[in-house]
Amino acid sequence: MRSDRLGETLLPKKLALPVFASDALSSVAYAPDEILLTLGLAGGTLALTQSWKIALVVVVVMAVVITSYRQNVHAYPSGGGDYEVASVNLGPRAGLTVASALLVDYVLTVAVSVSSGVQNAASAFTVIRGHEALVAVLIIVALTAMNLRGVRESGTAFAVPTYLFMAAVLGMALFGFYRKATGDLPPAESAGLVLRPESGFEGLGSLAMAFLLLRAFSSGCAALTGVEAISNGVPAFKKPKSRNAATTLLLMGTISVTMLMSMVALASWTGVKYADDEANQLLRDGVPVGDDYIQDTVMGQVSKAVFSNFPVGVVVVSVVTGLILVLAANTAFNGFPVLGSILARDGFLPRQLHTRGDRLAFSNGILILAGGAAFLVVVFDADVTRLIQLYIVGVFVSFTVSQVGMVRHWNRHLRVEKDAAARRRMLRSRVINGVGAAMSGLVLLVVLATKFVHGAGYAIAAMAVLFFLMLGVRKHYDHVRDELSVEERDTKASMLPSRVHAMVLVAKIHKPTLRALAYARATRPSVLEAVTVAVDTDETKALQDEWARRDIPVPLKALDSPYREITRPVLDYVRSIRSDNPRDLVVVYIPQYVVGHWWEQVLHNQSALRLRTRLLFTPGVMVASVPWQLVSAEGAEDRFEGPVVGDVRRG
Amino acid sequence: MRSDRLGETLLPKKLALPVFASDALSSVAYAPDEILLTLGLAGGTLALTQSWKIALVVVVVMAVVITSYRQNVHAYPSGGGDYEVASVNLGPRAGLTVASALLVDYVLTVAVSVSSGVQNAASAFTVIRGHEALVAVLIIVALTAMNLRGVRESGTAFAVPTYLFMAAVLGMALFGFYRKATGDLPPAESAGLVLRPESGFEGLGSLAMAFLLLRAFSSGCAALTGVEAISNGVPAFKKPKSRNAATTLLLMGTISVTMLMSMVALASWTGVKYADDEANQLLRDGVPVGDDYIQDTVMGQVSKAVFSNFPVGVVVVSVVTGLILVLAANTAFNGFPVLGSILARDGFLPRQLHTRGDRLAFSNGILILAGGAAFLVVVFDADVTRLIQLYIVGVFVSFTVSQVGMVRHWNRHLRVEKDAAARRRMLRSRVINGVGAAMSGLVLLVVLATKFVHGAGYAIAAMAVLFFLMLGVRKHYDHVRDELSVEERDTKASMLPSRVHAMVLVAKIHKPTLRALAYARATRPSVLEAVTVAVDTDETKALQDEWARRDIPVPLKALDSPYREITRPVLDYVRSIRSDNPRDLVVVYIPQYVVGHWWEQVLHNQSALRLRTRLLFTPGVMVASVPWQLVSAEGAEDRFEGPVVGDVRRG
Repeated sequence: MRSDRLGETLLPKKLALPVFASDALSSVAYAPDEILLTLGLAGGTLALTQSWKIALVVVVVMAVVITSYRQNVHAYPSGGGDYEVASVNLGPRAGLTVASALLVDYVLTVAVSVSSGVQNAASAFTVIRGHEALVAVLIIVALTAMNLRGVRESGTAFAVPTYLFMAAVLGMALFGFYRKATGDLPPAESAGLVLRPESGFEGLGSLAMAFLLLRAFSSGCAALTGVEAISNGVPAFKKPKSRNAATTLLLMGTISVTMLMSMVALASWTGVKYADDEANQLLRDGVPVGDDYIQDTVMGQVSKAVFSNFPVGVVVVSVVTGLILVLAANTAFNGFPVLGSILARDGFLPRQLHTRGDRLAFSNGILILAGGAAFLVVVFDADVTRLIQLYIVGVFVSFTVSQVGMVRHWNRHLRVEKDAAARRRMLRSRVINGVGAAMSGLVLLVVLATKFVHGAGYAIAAMAVLFFLMLGVRKHYDHVRDELSVEERDTKASMLPSRVHAMVLVAKIHKPTLRALAYARATRPSVLEAVTVAVDTDETKALQDEWARRDIPVPLKALDSPYREITRPVLDYVRSIRSDNPRDLVVVYIPQYVVGHWWEQVLHNQSALRLRTRLLFTPGVMVASVPWQLVSAEGAEDRFEGPVVGDVRRG
Repeated sequence: MRSDRLGETLLPKKLALPVFASDALSSVAYAPDEILLTLGLAGGTLALTQSWKIALVVVVVMAVVITSYRQNVHAYPSGGGDYEVASVNLGPRAGLTVASALLVDYVLTVAVSVSSGVQNAASAFTVIRGHEALVAVLIIVALTAMNLRGVRESGTAFAVPTYLFMAAVLGMALFGFYRKATGDLPPAESAGLVLRPESGFEGLGSLAMAFLLLRAFSSGCAALTGVEAISNGVPAFKKPKSRNAATTLLLMGTISVTMLMSMVALASWTGVKYADDEANQLLRDGVPVGDDYIQDTVMGQVSKAVFSNFPVGVVVVSVVTGLILVLAANTAFNGFPVLGSILARDGFLPRQLHTRGDRLAFSNGILILAGGAAFLVVVFDADVTRLIQLYIVGVFVSFTVSQVGMVRHWNRHLRVEKDAAARRRMLRSRVINGVGAAMSGLVLLVVLATKFVHGAGYAIAAMAVLFFLMLGVRKHYDHVRDELSVEERDTKASMLPSRVHAMVLVAKIHKPTLRALAYARATRPSVLEAVTVAVDTDETKALQDEWARRDIPVPLKALDSPYREITRPVLDYVRSIRSDNPRDLVVVYIPQYVVGHWWEQVLHNQSALRLRTRLLFTPGVMVASVPWQLVSAEGAEDRFEGPVVGDVRRG
């Protein structure tokens, strides 16, 4: 996308919602499950009586977070997101903390969304059962291939499945409410089972019970993932950007909350029993159901009950849920390389990741993301419940840091702002962000306390590793910058060499050699000679004879090679020239074949490449590669071209 | 080793024997086992009555082969070995056939020798049992590390274990004969067991029996592996080289034959029962011994019987056998890269493998060999019996082709030789090589017929793959040579460009940039300009301002980059210059950091490298890398240095 044409593709709200909301909305596919399942550890009664209360608390948190982010969207319309807010207001280390958390969470978004998508699809397509991890990895591979090829995102491609998903879930909810109201809502397939407490969770004391409720709450907070996406995408909105973004955010929050509460309500009305260890916890006529029992997701069970008289509905819900979860995973494929590029710009990641037009750089990001997600899927066997334990902590780290940053932002602006109306708005925003910071911080503590030993510890460890790695990269760049910076009158680096001593490396007389000689002569050096290494006496003699016969107007020097090496004699010779004439510049011309295939590359230029690498270590030497394009190289460079991913959401 | 000093390290016979014979001698550690085990498929009686006959036939074959190779050694003192003999006399494809066979056999030498060494060592060190494959892989890793580091072979290092092995085995044989003569030889630990036929092998018809005997014979031919080693090493012998080599060959053959017959005799006197499927074939009191029974190697069982009153002897035999087998494996680590280097010289393998002084090239050979051997050890679980099925076929392919080549060699010489005495010698040699060819060919057919389905087919397939791969490499090189060859008055390649248009790529002003500008100015091009890519408008403006402020005497041109790329604008600009002035040479100067660690390399130069690659595809462009050595690069190049392996045996 040309930067001067981006205006044409700005998103209206009705397209922005699906583009940015798939991650947040899709969490309704797994968040209710996690609430029910955690409560279910202490038995079916607790799940039945407490799930809607837990969901309500999650809704309150979501309302606060969304209100807070509406402030962010107005204050930072540049789309830098939490990383920018934290860096600007709290310094680079806070920014780096947020970045580490977000990078880890992108990987988890892919792992959780794809795993949940597979699990949901398995409700309708039973053939998937037992192969969830394999199918999940295949989906990740497909997403990777798609993004590597550079499929350009289009708002419409997002809009169709997202609106279908909303329609399916909200439609199911309405139909369910109608059947409930008419007393026609049938029980879920698991309603007849008894959910007994997991061993160790029978008759919990009030403290342990409170802890379990907090744990269920922190799992339910999975519903909040993806909320920050809009704040990263403000520049992609049609004008007025900030207001449109804030409105979309509110809309997304409302829909999310509605879906979540509907699912929890329908699950409890249809009597869904959802267990962590279903084979042993669920009893039929007092006997554990055993390993043969297949536990559908909450969404699957609810849809089978609500659409008991309309089986097509079950399939539709299953398909669109799977689809939106894959879409949610795909958002990470766009966000991860973009964040990587921003971090590279700031010197925290290898600089080549910054160049936006650069496909290779984005490819690396995509491969790292996919590799990490596939690793998690395999290690955790595509088990959403276990993956969720690692998730969320990153989201709340970035929520908290960002909201604290916003409070400082308003403090700073309040110090200079004189206008009373503006001050009032700022004070109000500061209160909102303050509440947001306190609330997110509290949730973060709850998440850490209830999930650390269940897996959040791994996520924290991964963030710490990334944090220190990126800090190290930045320190390295700073160090190199200092080493390379020039004083106003730096003489050594810009000192002109007194003479140029050019040498052309020759192995045999063929077209590349003749071209290298011609190019070297064209630069009119002070001294020009051809140099060969006498590895084989007969060959060298033959070369010298042909040289004389062809009357080539450049003297040929043969370097002895007692150890039959190539590199060392050349290096020694170059060094001897340099030490005899320290102010001379030595230019080594290396004829090089350019070939079209990687396997041809293996067959050529290897000793030239090695020599080049070694020569670059020698001060006062410049290495000139004179290419000769073989026929097979024609058209080969076009293989490097291709479109770039993830342009829509960057605006 | 300097080539002009090699004379000092030529080997006397007493050192040449251990250097070249470890592979051939060590086969006594597994060849008798394979004979007994194959015969044992049809029951204990057959093994007892036929094993010495089979061994005798193997001895006859070995005598013929050794006599034949004594002719090779005289006719080809250059050390090219079977590959040279086949190439010279039968053409490059015959040579390539031999080479493919030898490459496969080197890998198998490592796999078989190490596996057998581990199996033998397990007789004394029972802790190894059950972990044979792991221990074998660890030994391969250790050998690889040793050879990669470049441990120089010394004759003495070979002499001690080889002579110890000879002393141990021949000493054991003498002591055994003495105890047999005095009627004091105790039975082996398995003597009391009954060896019942494998199911399917009971009451074989005479045809099936004959086939089984042939199969046992072909397994016994494992004793012949390594015989050709001396013919590859003639140049390493003291003068008279050929005569000394021939004498050493005879000596090696005599010792091999003596050891083999002694082992077979002792095994049958002590009543060793050796079974393929020991758990089911061996019966104690009519009941299969089962999986708990541990079957020692024949060498292990014999040594325990002979040294029943001298347990230290058992340990010594076990240790020196393990040692010489590891030594035998190590010979492949020297031979494989050397053969690779010869094949590279002839254009059948990537040319860079040819440069002898080049450690990296040898490293690649060593890694490929070790990888292949480790793969086989893991796949075949370090089971010598199964690995032997793949072995030998390669040896006899090369024996046969080489002996046929020798017959043609004598034919050719007889056509021109007039001297009667010389003709007589040649006629005699031709008869010997003819018999050798016929005998090896016959054995090859037997090996193929009896072993193809048991695994030799895999070896043949591997050889075929190598053959066609190497043929393809050669064809590619021939093709490129034709494309690059110059006519006597070739004009295009040597045409002098009319003008030189130089451009220095600039990202920011620092020391590498100033140096690149200085070097570029020193070459006094017709046009010189600095070029930057305007990815970020603010940064470009800042660069232009600083450029003006510093009064740098080269104009700075900023290239638009609408897609925020770096590579394409530069390429487009270069192409536009070329198309405006087709006879101009464009020289692109790229400032480049030289760093000391690979991870620093990841952080720098990536876009420069990519640009360089792309520019090389553009005709009429030369790319000059101007290095700036960072402090961390100091001393880093020394990491590339180191000694080279495998010099002793190459002479």
